[in-house]
Amino acid sequence: MNEALRLRALRKSMAAQQVEALLLTHLPDVRYLCGFTGSNAALAITASKSVLFTDGRYIAQAKAETRAARVVIAKQSALKEACTFLESAAKASAFDPENTTVAQLTAMRAALTGKRRRGFFAPLDQPLVANQRMVKDADELKAMAKAADLGNRIFLATLPHIQSGVPESEVAAGLEFFARSMGAEAMSFETIIASGPRSSLPHGRATSRKLPRKGFVTLDFGVILNGYCSDMTRTVHLGKPGAQERRSYDAVLAAQEAAVAAVRPGVTCGQVDEAARSILRDAGLAKYFTHSTGHGVGLEIHENPRVAAGQTLELKPGMVITIEPGIYLAEKFGIRIEDMVAVTDRGHKVLTPVSKALIEL
Amino acid sequence: MNEALRLRALRKSMAAQQVEALLLTHLPDVRYLCGFTGSNAALAITASKSVLFTDGRYIAQAKAETRAARVVIAKQSALKEACTFLESAAKASAFDPENTTVAQLTAMRAALTGKRRRGFFAPLDQPLVANQRMVKDADELKAMAKAADLGNRIFLATLPHIQSGVPESEVAAGLEFFARSMGAEAMSFETIIASGPRSSLPHGRATSRKLPRKGFVTLDFGVILNGYCSDMTRTVHLGKPGAQERRSYDAVLAAQEAAVAAVRPGVTCGQVDEAARSILRDAGLAKYFTHSTGHGVGLEIHENPRVAAGQTLELKPGMVITIEPGIYLAEKFGIRIEDMVAVTDRGHKVLTPVSKALIEL
Repeated sequence: MNEALRLRALRKSMAAQQVEALLLTHLPDVRYLCGFTGSNAALAITASKSVLFTDGRYIAQAKAETRAARVVIAKQSALKEACTFLESAAKASAFDPENTTVAQLTAMRAALTGKRRRGFFAPLDQPLVANQRMVKDADELKAMAKAADLGNRIFLATLPHIQSGVPESEVAAGLEFFARSMGAEAMSFETIIASGPRSSLPHGRATSRKLPRKGFVTLDFGVILNGYCSDMTRTVHLGKPGAQERRSYDAVLAAQEAAVAAVRPGVTCGQVDEAARSILRDAGLAKYFTHSTGHGVGLEIHENPRVAAGQTLELKPGMVITIEPGIYLAEKFGIRIEDMVAVTDRGHKVLTPVSKALIEL
Repeated sequence: MNEALRLRALRKSMAAQQVEALLLTHLPDVRYLCGFTGSNAALAITASKSVLFTDGRYIAQAKAETRAARVVIAKQSALKEACTFLESAAKASAFDPENTTVAQLTAMRAALTGKRRRGFFAPLDQPLVANQRMVKDADELKAMAKAADLGNRIFLATLPHIQSGVPESEVAAGLEFFARSMGAEAMSFETIIASGPRSSLPHGRATSRKLPRKGFVTLDFGVILNGYCSDMTRTVHLGKPGAQERRSYDAVLAAQEAAVAAVRPGVTCGQVDEAARSILRDAGLAKYFTHSTGHGVGLEIHENPRVAAGQTLELKPGMVITIEPGIYLAEKFGIRIEDMVAVTDRGHKVLTPVSKALIEL
């Protein structure tokens, strides 16, 4: 990963926004900009300097991982030492209001000497780092394609283990074992295995419930590989689906494919959402589609942009989003189908090209 | 879990602090007080009402899980609707500055009508919920003992798989498969398997590196069971340890046992830390002990209290903390030993009573 290039781009947008200095504590931002992956970090950035503050647990790791920033091991608080540094290096500093707690801001201000306290720290007007991270660079696109491909292989390896009578949690255990064995660092969120009527819970974690003889099973999972998250969902059917199940599946699939087809530069996120929603509306199922169509994904499982009704943000080449419409009929069944899709110069590329035809097991 | 009892205790401390209403968005706090486990929630609490706001993904789940609070499915933003409710129900409301971002606070204030905006939301002076959660109730102590016991069994099941030549990531895969198969909902943090010189990284994630023929292997892992986290560390040795390795292990073990022995009501967290640190100081190893002795654990893997140098907070019955001194000799080896310890009426109970004698594999 070319962190120096990213820092250069960030400094350019800082200059354009007249941001003299910036303090970041959000760990994915820190990793993105300087490579450090520890659990405690404050990254101070000025026009000419970037300094990473962390603590004694990370002496060796910070040295090994950090690129494009000087490392300081703080004696007491990494955050406070970063503030002291910024006070010496800049006349004012911005911070990220989305990822700074009110208590942190109080501590940041308290770390300054009396004279400058007032007004030294001001919130960013624009989420500069989140905006930059929304458009993946070439290294990131490679990493994300690899993470997504690992997800694909895990899904295929798990399929034979989806059998009636097996507890949901055992399907999850197997899936996660494949993930680890195939090189995943971790799961990107708690694996969802929701079977039978539980498939109507959009976020149904795997439980000890046994898979039914007949019914839908939703698998929604993701891995982390080299720091980047994958995210995919498939809904399969145990036994032969009835007419309503099949009709519903076909409608969700048509909605999902229409939204994927809509993905290209210049299209708004709201238009992508509407592409899915209008098909479910025509099928009389819109009221069961109770969430948005998708979200950005990258170092975090949920990033900008939001692919939701009314969102006016336009897609750009390099964005990676999920497309995951679903319908949920309380206590009956649920269906969700999700791909990870990268926006390309002229259209899109599906990173999870695993068949979406209804699988009957 | 008796959420109604917890809400009653919270209302008592709210009244004592003259807090008329309280808005909480930190998910473990929400779960603790009303049982809801979804990923988006705002819990509004007044002297007579408690209302949980979430979104359309959680219609069924919120209904099934939420106790001691009314559920509202927000049309747009759960946070904003919670603010509107609070404005109608109270003259002022507190929020938790430790878990509210600056951007959230801005949105909360913007959700109010003009007249009341100024001064309606004020930060809590005391972390009322964190303080309450620091002392576990009987239900929680049972849940934590179960989670810790699951951790113990997973460690014993994993031991035979710690063999030279096996990649660290495969040890982690096996450990996590046991965890899932034995009923864990998830791991409570990224499993640490650090072997040979990598054991000198306090937070060495499992990599593809193969376990060496000879050297320390640190296993630090935890599970989540019924929402509660376990946390334990053992360091084992492949092959016969040299004199320095054995001496170092003995010193860390003595430090760890001294700190555990110091745990009882009325003792400060700083005294517990010093019990470990002084032994490593006498052994000339204090400079390699680069972190604090431990931390509280519960619904989150890191909670109050901090068991660190100078901490004046006194232990109380019901607190559950980790005791985990370690030493890290850069590029040579590292050793950490960690137990979960509950403070009892007269002393303590170790929840992870797995042998700490140096295991040679």
